[in-house]
Amino acid sequence: MNPESSVLLTDLYQLTMLQAYFDQRMEETAVFEFFVRKLPPNRGFLMAAGLEQALDYLENVRFTAPELDWLARSGRFSRDFVDYLAQLRFTGDVHAMPEGTVFFPLEPILRVTAPMPQAQLVETRLINLLHFQTIIASKAARAVLIAPGKGLIDFGLRRAHGAEAGVLAARAAYLAGFSGSATVLAGFLYGVPVYGTMAHSFIQAHDDETAAFEHFAHAQPDNVVLLIDTYDTEAAAKKVVALAPRLREQGIAVKGVRLDSGDLADLAVKVRRILDAGGLQDARILASGNLDEEAVRALIACGAPIDDFAIGTRLDTSADAPYLDCAYKLQEYAGHARRKRSAGKATWPGRKQVYRRLGSDGRMAGDILTLEDDPHEGEPLLHPVMRAGRRLQPSPSLSELRRYAASQLACLPEHLRQLCVDPPYPVSIARSLEDLAQAVDQQTSLPFPT
Amino acid sequence: MNPESSVLLTDLYQLTMLQAYFDQRMEETAVFEFFVRKLPPNRGFLMAAGLEQALDYLENVRFTAPELDWLARSGRFSRDFVDYLAQLRFTGDVHAMPEGTVFFPLEPILRVTAPMPQAQLVETRLINLLHFQTIIASKAARAVLIAPGKGLIDFGLRRAHGAEAGVLAARAAYLAGFSGSATVLAGFLYGVPVYGTMAHSFIQAHDDETAAFEHFAHAQPDNVVLLIDTYDTEAAAKKVVALAPRLREQGIAVKGVRLDSGDLADLAVKVRRILDAGGLQDARILASGNLDEEAVRALIACGAPIDDFAIGTRLDTSADAPYLDCAYKLQEYAGHARRKRSAGKATWPGRKQVYRRLGSDGRMAGDILTLEDDPHEGEPLLHPVMRAGRRLQPSPSLSELRRYAASQLACLPEHLRQLCVDPPYPVSIARSLEDLAQAVDQQTSLPFPT
Repeated sequence: MNPESSVLLTDLYQLTMLQAYFDQRMEETAVFEFFVRKLPPNRGFLMAAGLEQALDYLENVRFTAPELDWLARSGRFSRDFVDYLAQLRFTGDVHAMPEGTVFFPLEPILRVTAPMPQAQLVETRLINLLHFQTIIASKAARAVLIAPGKGLIDFGLRRAHGAEAGVLAARAAYLAGFSGSATVLAGFLYGVPVYGTMAHSFIQAHDDETAAFEHFAHAQPDNVVLLIDTYDTEAAAKKVVALAPRLREQGIAVKGVRLDSGDLADLAVKVRRILDAGGLQDARILASGNLDEEAVRALIACGAPIDDFAIGTRLDTSADAPYLDCAYKLQEYAGHARRKRSAGKATWPGRKQVYRRLGSDGRMAGDILTLEDDPHEGEPLLHPVMRAGRRLQPSPSLSELRRYAASQLACLPEHLRQLCVDPPYPVSIARSLEDLAQAVDQQTSLPFPT
Repeated sequence: MNPESSVLLTDLYQLTMLQAYFDQRMEETAVFEFFVRKLPPNRGFLMAAGLEQALDYLENVRFTAPELDWLARSGRFSRDFVDYLAQLRFTGDVHAMPEGTVFFPLEPILRVTAPMPQAQLVETRLINLLHFQTIIASKAARAVLIAPGKGLIDFGLRRAHGAEAGVLAARAAYLAGFSGSATVLAGFLYGVPVYGTMAHSFIQAHDDETAAFEHFAHAQPDNVVLLIDTYDTEAAAKKVVALAPRLREQGIAVKGVRLDSGDLADLAVKVRRILDAGGLQDARILASGNLDEEAVRALIACGAPIDDFAIGTRLDTSADAPYLDCAYKLQEYAGHARRKRSAGKATWPGRKQVYRRLGSDGRMAGDILTLEDDPHEGEPLLHPVMRAGRRLQPSPSLSELRRYAASQLACLPEHLRQLCVDPPYPVSIARSLEDLAQAVDQQTSLPFPT
């Protein structure tokens, strides 16, 4: 099974609508934008991520023969339509904010301009890709901001929601500033630095804890980080100290120890003392176990001597905000601006752009959401990235994106860097956009002028 | 990219431990069990799911040449070890609860018995697979229990965490009793019934709402479910009524309408009245938009005339409980029972079995967690499913699993069927297990007898 690459990874309604568009020859240009309606309770900003995978997807949209057969046999679609699907490719344009860009509600981070059926078909997977990496990068960025100088490692694969979530969470967290991940495949696929020590089972499989430490040190002489909480953390720290001279004689240094349970702040102090007294001042302390950015902040605030934090489940599931209220909405069709007016879900019409002003301190001072053809002061955030179905530039490397993301975080207003969500960052609506919305509303109540 | 099938979809520590096991020739039989430590706040029971994918994974564990090259070039592993990995297959045994089984904390739903390196390597992906489908089936089952006689459809792909989460959520929800999913690929891969109507963009792309309805009806004559909340829900319902006779002349029936915003209870009453007055008594009302089982319960309780509910984001992300506190722990190595004693994370040692007693009413009366060789009254829940790396039986069909899951839900104690989580279902610990734990604790403080 390879669900990532199947064009059937979509909602049935995309195909039923496509049958209707096909029947009606509705192939005029449509403009859709992806944006977040509002922030989850604990977020003051979001970080855009997932564009690379979204563009990969668009470049490879096609139905395979078995998929076409299956659709034909379903009885839901006409033979002509299935033949049409066989030829379907994505030939549209894409504008987007670069991955790592800080953004706010209502601001589109991606715009698709393409013949209606193409722009419609790709909705589900585009949302699926942009939504997930954006929630992870946005959560990871919070930990990055509150733990300067600390190592941060993603440990979340096992409780991530499936395979793709695991590797893309590792990617998004690294992009946002994490040091790396335990997920080997994220190293293989994306070059994310991978980290790993040992599990409790390794200790338990040995009759003696010191023997387990020694065996591990011999097997991984450059990576001696020892898990010391299986039975008695302080006793294990003393065993590490006792073992260290013997390892040193063999040219092996103890790089660190890992705490995974108990009162981490208290144990870190006690373990640090034991390590220092035993001559292991350079050994680092890595903490893990049910952490998130709030727990990390609390540990740092109380002065716990922890050097590295591994954050797993709560990062990879974005546990406090496992989804975003986001949408991919039609803004224009056949040259006319469009708008949804459903209760509580109304959208701003037209092709939009976001301009960002920086203050004299270099920090972000305010954004304005406007129409593409109504420029404002500041830096435009949406850029062309794909034309006629092909990328305009080679993709930036993950390291480049990570540096860009860091520069974005550095420009956040101070209170958002401190993770205070009030006051919200100011995003204003350009007059041109309000005027267009009003015009669209007036037109929609009547048949459109043709 | 095909992350599902890569053996590198694991934590680095599995590989660093395997290097040490290899160096030390630690290839004795290990027994690991997967279980949930405790229930999330809103769950009174869990439903096991994901075994099918877990067994697929175990049957296909192997390193590819590019993966082996990459590992060798990482400098972390010995050449001999990489050669050993090239030959590695899973040759162990698996015992498990069938998918669809209702289970409770501490009860293992899967046991792996295999040479240590094999049993260790597969930890991450086994947890990843069992954890995700189990949280989804467990949440979906809640909706199934409180909405008897209603249609329930998974609409969550777009905000599921990646591709695999989307298709496996559709599978798990169907297994738990949902009617189907909007995810086309879940139909293609698993035969999950797929449902779909239209998006707001389809309505907006037309200059006239009635024209949009009519175009859709012609394109999907057997599936005329019309989205009526784009502009004004009641006005749109009246347009549907006005259009219906014309469609009827062409042999097309309006099957239903969909509400996706606003006060669903109030709108459903008003729309039902309009449809009934217009001769569309058979047209169903489908509601969607930010629903979960609590919202569905509230809509049913107030008598809203809604026939079908589409549940999306909050199901596919298990939004109120996006992860389980679960573990895959070493229970025995080389014939000796093992136990982790970390603070708050201690485990019961040994190979375990769960017996379930039913009361005279046929409802579940209590479970006992015991050792495999210490049988108790009731039905054993763990069964052998794989021997020497091969499935013992062909996989049951998803329909069979769905029927079994329904029979499990029917046996829940009444208060758990009502989603009351108190009192917790009784799971007792057999005396044999307590004795073994005590014995292991006494031994671990001394070197093991050899």
